Amino acid sequence: MILYSKNYWGLPLLVRFYGSAFPRTIPFAVMSGAISVALEWTVAKDEDGLPSESRSWWEHPYPYQTFAFIVGFMLVFRSNFGYGRYWEGRTALQLMSAKWSDAVIQVLNFDFGTLPPDLDDEGKRRARRFGDTFVHLMSLLHAVAVQNLRKDWELDNLRPHDQGQPEPPMDPRYIKDATKRGMRYMTVTDFTHLRSGKGHIKMYNSLMPLGVVGGITEEEFVGLGKDMKDSGDDNPGGLSRGARLSNGVVIPGPAERVQVVMSWVHQIVLERRREGGLAIEAPILTRVYQVLSEGMLGFEQSRKIMDTPFPFPWVQFATVCLLLYALTVPIVISAYITEDWLAFLLTLFAVMTYYALNEVARDLEDPFIYDPNDLPMARHQYAFNERILSLSGTKRPFSPTEMG
Amino acid sequence: MILYSKNYWGLPLLVRFYGSAFPRTIPFAVMSGAISVALEWTVAKDEDGLPSESRSWWEHPYPYQTFAFIVGFMLVFRSNFGYGRYWEGRTALQLMSAKWSDAVIQVLNFDFGTLPPDLDDEGKRRARRFGDTFVHLMSLLHAVAVQNLRKDWELDNLRPHDQGQPEPPMDPRYIKDATKRGMRYMTVTDFTHLRSGKGHIKMYNSLMPLGVVGGITEEEFVGLGKDMKDSGDDNPGGLSRGARLSNGVVIPGPAERVQVVMSWVHQIVLERRREGGLAIEAPILTRVYQVLSEGMLGFEQSRKIMDTPFPFPWVQFATVCLLLYALTVPIVISAYITEDWLAFLLTLFAVMTYYALNEVARDLEDPFIYDPNDLPMARHQYAFNERILSLSGTKRPFSPTEMG
Amino acid sequence: MILYSKNYWGLPLLVRFYGSAFPRTIPFAVMSGAISVALEWTVAKDEDGLPSESRSWWEHPYPYQTFAFIVGFMLVFRSNFGYGRYWEGRTALQLMSAKWSDAVIQVLNFDFGTLPPDLDDEGKRRARRFGDTFVHLMSLLHAVAVQNLRKDWELDNLRPHDQGQPEPPMDPRYIKDATKRGMRYMTVTDFTHLRSGKGHIKMYNSLMPLGVVGGITEEEFVGLGKDMKDSGDDNPGGLSRGARLSNGVVIPGPAERVQVVMSWVHQIVLERRREGGLAIEAPILTRVYQVLSEGMLGFEQSRKIMDTPFPFPWVQFATVCLLLYALTVPIVISAYITEDWLAFLLTLFAVMTYYALNEVARDLEDPFIYDPNDLPMARHQYAFNERILSLSGTKRPFSPTEMG
Amino acid sequence: MILYSKNYWGLPLLVRFYGSAFPRTIPFAVMSGAISVALEWTVAKDEDGLPSESRSWWEHPYPYQTFAFIVGFMLVFRSNFGYGRYWEGRTALQLMSAKWSDAVIQVLNFDFGTLPPDLDDEGKRRARRFGDTFVHLMSLLHAVAVQNLRKDWELDNLRPHDQGQPEPPMDPRYIKDATKRGMRYMTVTDFTHLRSGKGHIKMYNSLMPLGVVGGITEEEFVGLGKDMKDSGDDNPGGLSRGARLSNGVVIPGPAERVQVVMSWVHQIVLERRREGGLAIEAPILTRVYQVLSEGMLGFEQSRKIMDTPFPFPWVQFATVCLLLYALTVPIVISAYITEDWLAFLLTLFAVMTYYALNEVARDLEDPFIYDPNDLPMARHQYAFNERILSLSGTKRPFSPTEMG
Amino acid sequence: MILYSKNYWGLPLLVRFYGSAFPRTIPFAVMSGAISVALEWTVAKDEDGLPSESRSWWEHPYPYQTFAFIVGFMLVFRSNFGYGRYWEGRTALQLMSAKWSDAVIQVLNFDFGTLPPDLDDEGKRRARRFGDTFVHLMSLLHAVAVQNLRKDWELDNLRPHDQGQPEPPMDPRYIKDATKRGMRYMTVTDFTHLRSGKGHIKMYNSLMPLGVVGGITEEEFVGLGKDMKDSGDDNPGGLSRGARLSNGVVIPGPAERVQVVMSWVHQIVLERRREGGLAIEAPILTRVYQVLSEGMLGFEQSRKIMDTPFPFPWVQFATVCLLLYALTVPIVISAYITEDWLAFLLTLFAVMTYYALNEVARDLEDPFIYDPNDLPMARHQYAFNERILSLSGTKRPFSPTEMG
Repeated sequence: MILYSKNYWGLPLLVRFYGSAFPRTIPFAVMSGAISVALEWTVAKDEDGLPSESRSWWEHPYPYQTFAFIVGFMLVFRSNFGYGRYWEGRTALQLMSAKWSDAVIQVLNFDFGTLPPDLDDEGKRRARRFGDTFVHLMSLLHAVAVQNLRKDWELDNLRPHDQGQPEPPMDPRYIKDATKRGMRYMTVTDFTHLRSGKGHIKMYNSLMPLGVVGGITEEEFVGLGKDMKDSGDDNPGGLSRGARLSNGVVIPGPAERVQVVMSWVHQIVLERRREGGLAIEAPILTRVYQVLSEGMLGFEQSRKIMDTPFPFPWVQFATVCLLLYALTVPIVISAYITEDWLAFLLTLFAVMTYYALNEVARDLEDPFIYDPNDLPMARHQYAFNERILSLSGTKRPFSPTEMG
Repeated sequence: MILYSKNYWGLPLLVRFYGSAFPRTIPFAVMSGAISVALEWTVAKDEDGLPSESRSWWEHPYPYQTFAFIVGFMLVFRSNFGYGRYWEGRTALQLMSAKWSDAVIQVLNFDFGTLPPDLDDEGKRRARRFGDTFVHLMSLLHAVAVQNLRKDWELDNLRPHDQGQPEPPMDPRYIKDATKRGMRYMTVTDFTHLRSGKGHIKMYNSLMPLGVVGGITEEEFVGLGKDMKDSGDDNPGGLSRGARLSNGVVIPGPAERVQVVMSWVHQIVLERRREGGLAIEAPILTRVYQVLSEGMLGFEQSRKIMDTPFPFPWVQFATVCLLLYALTVPIVISAYITEDWLAFLLTLFAVMTYYALNEVARDLEDPFIYDPNDLPMARHQYAFNERILSLSGTKRPFSPTEMG
Repeated sequence: MILYSKNYWGLPLLVRFYGSAFPRTIPFAVMSGAISVALEWTVAKDEDGLPSESRSWWEHPYPYQTFAFIVGFMLVFRSNFGYGRYWEGRTALQLMSAKWSDAVIQVLNFDFGTLPPDLDDEGKRRARRFGDTFVHLMSLLHAVAVQNLRKDWELDNLRPHDQGQPEPPMDPRYIKDATKRGMRYMTVTDFTHLRSGKGHIKMYNSLMPLGVVGGITEEEFVGLGKDMKDSGDDNPGGLSRGARLSNGVVIPGPAERVQVVMSWVHQIVLERRREGGLAIEAPILTRVYQVLSEGMLGFEQSRKIMDTPFPFPWVQFATVCLLLYALTVPIVISAYITEDWLAFLLTLFAVMTYYALNEVARDLEDPFIYDPNDLPMARHQYAFNERILSLSGTKRPFSPTEMG
Repeated sequence: MILYSKNYWGLPLLVRFYGSAFPRTIPFAVMSGAISVALEWTVAKDEDGLPSESRSWWEHPYPYQTFAFIVGFMLVFRSNFGYGRYWEGRTALQLMSAKWSDAVIQVLNFDFGTLPPDLDDEGKRRARRFGDTFVHLMSLLHAVAVQNLRKDWELDNLRPHDQGQPEPPMDPRYIKDATKRGMRYMTVTDFTHLRSGKGHIKMYNSLMPLGVVGGITEEEFVGLGKDMKDSGDDNPGGLSRGARLSNGVVIPGPAERVQVVMSWVHQIVLERRREGGLAIEAPILTRVYQVLSEGMLGFEQSRKIMDTPFPFPWVQFATVCLLLYALTVPIVISAYITEDWLAFLLTLFAVMTYYALNEVARDLEDPFIYDPNDLPMARHQYAFNERILSLSGTKRPFSPTEMG
Repeated sequence: MILYSKNYWGLPLLVRFYGSAFPRTIPFAVMSGAISVALEWTVAKDEDGLPSESRSWWEHPYPYQTFAFIVGFMLVFRSNFGYGRYWEGRTALQLMSAKWSDAVIQVLNFDFGTLPPDLDDEGKRRARRFGDTFVHLMSLLHAVAVQNLRKDWELDNLRPHDQGQPEPPMDPRYIKDATKRGMRYMTVTDFTHLRSGKGHIKMYNSLMPLGVVGGITEEEFVGLGKDMKDSGDDNPGGLSRGARLSNGVVIPGPAERVQVVMSWVHQIVLERRREGGLAIEAPILTRVYQVLSEGMLGFEQSRKIMDTPFPFPWVQFATVCLLLYALTVPIVISAYITEDWLAFLLTLFAVMTYYALNEVARDLEDPFIYDPNDLPMARHQYAFNERILSLSGTKRPFSPTEMG
């Protein structure tokens, strides 16, 4: 996600290329401009006060307008949907993190707040261990959720959360060593691939690892399916096949990891109750299950956006319309504009704006991928980790009302 | 659902026909183009510098514009509603699956997590059987829900879930043996029927069976209404008539199956409690009933979209407007465009884009049918099965915080 | 609600009149067309190559465009709101039925599932009677809710649900004896009244009675306010006045019936608990109260749409704009179109499409009345009855996992 | 709120002035029309076949179109937001009333339904008194909420609910004695003030008092802040200052009344439990707290609309654009229309429709004030009172299933 | 937030500059106007009845229209999104405050309402202290939430709530001493910075401190992270790094403060239960946890709007389009308007309205900053404080039903 300043009417934004939609429009704008100039030089040549040949084709531009109108309209709605998907993804993601934060607040306090006053050392140790483990598991839960949303199936991208390290950048421009490893804009594929090449996404994800509080054990990696060869494929549908190994261990498909870790969270809560902790009344403990389920809904609605592309027939329709537009608008422009440079410029602007609107929509409609306009997933994970860490250590100080 | 690549500005999408809205627009585009050319050759013949006859009809195209404006506008809003219905269906479906997944996580853990430590073998066997049966019933519940949404009333399309088999394809183009059985695009009816012929839908559904974990017993089939002749009719309203057989067994109408299986799910939970399982406190167990009910709401809101078509008067309005447009736009185009080929092309583009926008809306507004742009219901069922299977087998591994 | 086929691009829909918005547009379209022709024959007479008189009034049609633009725009938004209200009504109705279904699933299972194994015959009889009565009351609750939404205050339209009878039709065209009793389209008032005449609505409601499982006792009719003369008036606000009869019985106003029956539902649940039934733990039973309240919200939000018309100032604005448009568009068309038949046709199309869009909105914005484009309330009640009846009789069969 | 008939295409609505947006547009429409005629008579004078002077200013009206386009568009969106606020207000209000109704159903039944069978007379009297007091307090709660929404801070406008009286009118045209007291439309300020003068609102509110079941005691008035001088000012923010009187009584600011009464409702519930009533299990009683809180959310979201005006910069933008439009559209119209009467009429229509759209938005965007297009708050209160009164008296009659 | 009058059609609003979007459009409008005049004087010079040179460039303005159409459309949608964000922020904020108010109502009553009748003085003192402390903590919670939303990280801006002081103004124009300290509009940076300069925001926040009931202790300041140097940077992502001091105290990053205080709220509730207070049944107390979590969701969804800017590529697209528009519209206007002053005025209006629409969107899309059109956060905090204070002191008076 690119943070930008609103000063000076946003004019400084004009010179940022990495993340801009305009470079991707250049091929089409240039093509149309060229056609326009070519027509100006041939059929649209205006001589001796007589209308040019191409001008004589049209008595009025209206017949073109009826077509261009629907193209323009359709584009604006598409970009409306694109932003809608972006924002829905952001909202669902926030629901997920907010509710899982709540679960941490509740569980930690329900456990610590009900410890018997005469707890022995072993009991204290266990309480501390439970708290740490719970925080660790919630961090892991959040990490595999975030990972799933960015279509990242590499377990290696889960790393221990390191509070000493600086936060991951929101804007991938600030990834360290980025230059060396090709994160700068203006590679050829940026013109053609919307930064969606598999190699690019892989590199990007590995440059932005996701921290897990306390790290991850080998056993946990196995439980998350490490022993199953990742399908390594963009198709999330292809990722729901799990397996039951010969030793009886169940290996979830990559797309099942979130539910599996959620199950572990349930298990540790029940284990803790068995050993006498979390001694809060059940009607209050039940809230924890509610917020866990609400957070899961946030995850699943985010996942919906990740795995359901904007529908094919609409996309094809937009692509066709834009191409027809780019090919035909020079005809009408060259017919009605007699000045070559003006015809060229107008064609350029018309095609560039139409394509750019489409490119913006294509970029935003998948909010969890396509850097640098994706949502800052690694940072989101970092903030979640820091938040639950600070929750695990805070103790209510005296209030003014309690003084004296 | 068609998964597609965003590379190269989506240009490769232009050559995909199966699932495209354009072929269905050809008859109208060609008709209008033909009218346009015919007019060009007759009344729009421009001779001796004098305006053609048809040109002399119009002093300005504005009178046409006022009509075309409302047509274009209406189309864009219709396609807006179409996408709205598609997306609402997708969201409600996700709600259903997410919440029913949660029910599985909760019930399995509430049962296993409260087993007494000194459980005897019979008790263990029963616990295992309960877990398996619960997973089976949730899979069946999800399957009949999915089946209802795709208007599929054939109980034969429910098959045992087979983990060894590959996943069902999202894109029906990849159905095996599809060529042989007519799933390729470009049959004549595809031009005329939006793939909605009853024979086609029946074949498609039987090629995409829905898996149920553990399979289905004959008794269950009977309980789902096998003995009642299916009405075999598209009209879901016609499907709510059940019967009480002479032996006292109640046979639900096809549209009641989901609620009936939900009732079975309630029954098994209570049975398990009676035999001493699910020994979690009631205030916590109550969450299960909540997520089951929330998931049911997801189903019912999906069903609403399935059984409430986009309203007739609007559809008729759109059809009339488009037809008037296709018949009259050649008049205005031929009057103002003197060049035959240009008039033909502009007519073609104008009519094609207007119709295509309408066809996209017609395709998307019913998100659970009309392959290949429907939501991938069989795959959705498969993923749900795999998810609950992996939940039924996972056990929390040691965390780093518990080491040493 | 009209079910229609999507085959053949919807062209067959063009010949359906009953439910179409077009007939209601005829008076205005014809009026405008006539004005247009009259103008063509008088001031727009084009003679000797000189521009006609009316043509000389306009140098450019733009001054008209600025007015027509806002009219067209406003219409499209109005029809957007109309569909929005329709869909919101449908969604709220589904919420109501879904949640009240859930209440039946829960209560029946919570009662049967907790009966002691050694229940005596009297106890079994009571349990059966409770189940039947609860199903009856939920059916009555749903029936009075549905009746309220369709602004039907006649208690006589509540009839015993008869499983032997065929389902009520969705499309009122298929009401039996409809011909005899005037349900065919194309009566004079259909041109003028949007099928909203009080006589028509009364007849329609009595032709589509609402079934209640088990019928209704005289006592229940009294409790619903039978002894109070119905106000028999469209104004729902006028219906909230109840009375306390001299014998102390409270008579609710017609608009209060739903809450009154809901109170009865609460009472039977508590009675059953008193006599020892519904012996589920309270934290689980509490779900029943939740789903009843959620369903009630669905009802109340539906009722909101029923009793809050689309705001008057907007409606008046739309009516004024359309009338001005119909009166003035012939002036601009006749000025710019020299050919009489073309001017006539364009005027006709322009006025017809504008009015039709408005009529579609007027029809859909009140989703519970105005056949045949209303939601199928009688069918909805029938399906609810059948659903809860099948729930009351189903028993979980053995699953594959329990075999052997 | 104005109830209107849909018969005859709504044409009868054209003659209703009180509540219409058009009268308020007259000054601007007339001004623009006058400018237009003045221009026609001077610079647009068309003589001797030569173009008029003003016509010679424009070669094409497009330069004006680019400005008018954005004005029209912006207006339609504004009116979209206006209706959105109206409808959101209506929905939130319904949520409030629906949930607080539910609270009455629940509390009354939870109390009566758990009375011991052998209750003595004192106990019965207490139960009756509790029921009456609870109904009274809920009525008071609803009344202060409704009062807050209509920005009415006069405690005198709370009156005892009188079942014998007719319902308050929805349409203020039917307020009795209205003529005498100035409620008829067409006073001078109606042209200028959108019925928002402080004097007018005060009079209107006092003509439409809000009923409270059982009336209000002096003590309650004091508790609601009677002793604090009302700020009597439109600014709701200015109303949140309370005080603690010397006798220790807390006086809420007017904007706090709803929360204060809600606190009283909580208190009476706990008092009743202390004296042995409401003997339902706590997990079921907890629903009451849930529906109270949900209803409160409905109130608060309604209040948001009341206290957050449509943002200033947008309003200013709309006002500027409309004024520029009204001043300049005569220039372009008079240039292109040679016929004086046509120029006058077109100017009139153009300005009138643009302003009317804006006035409709201004009227609807604040749904709780500005008669007669406000929501019928007094009627809403009346219906709530009647509903909870009928709930307090109803007893479940025998059902058919219980006969014999 | 600016409160304004609707009298006189809003005309008085035209003279308000501070908060207006128009001044920021002046540079562009003037630039375009100048270009327009320059062109009129050079290439658009119309001599001897021959078309000017620039006029001869265009046969028809349509080629420009196709570009301007998409610009206008895009702008209207952007401003739609801007208002959408504003309103979503307002709604989420209301959810937060409403639910946290509910928590206060509940906790205070659950504590006082369950005190034993024979409570000794120490017990009463404790109850009072608990009530006061709880109110204090909820006020602090709300204050840090509000502070976070306005991107204010200075703990010094938290001050004791002083009931004697007047309310903070909604409209910053009324800040006392504002003149002296630069809060008047029309400083140079207001033209360029949208009041978003860091210095300005800092000053504004310190002029509008947030009250906390009871003040804040030094210990609380430390617990909120006082000892950690604030990063003092706009980037909220940079604020999630906390620390664990050598003495074991955890210091949250500024962005974690809300969750930390929420944890304190949980802790005090549990402490109170331990010492015997809040003796309500757990199933009822559990509602408190629910409303706290719902309020937190309101906060988190508000925070989402604060930390996720409107996406960069769209903003850049809008900026580019507007600039191209401002540079090119003079060309088309000067070509078609022969009269210099008219060309100048039309250019001015066209550019001003387009830019103003964009500026309105830029202002509203971040609803918690950019005075004076921000939401009145300090006032919101004040009203919350007053509300919970009046709740802490109110006692139910006798009702009419309890008299005699």
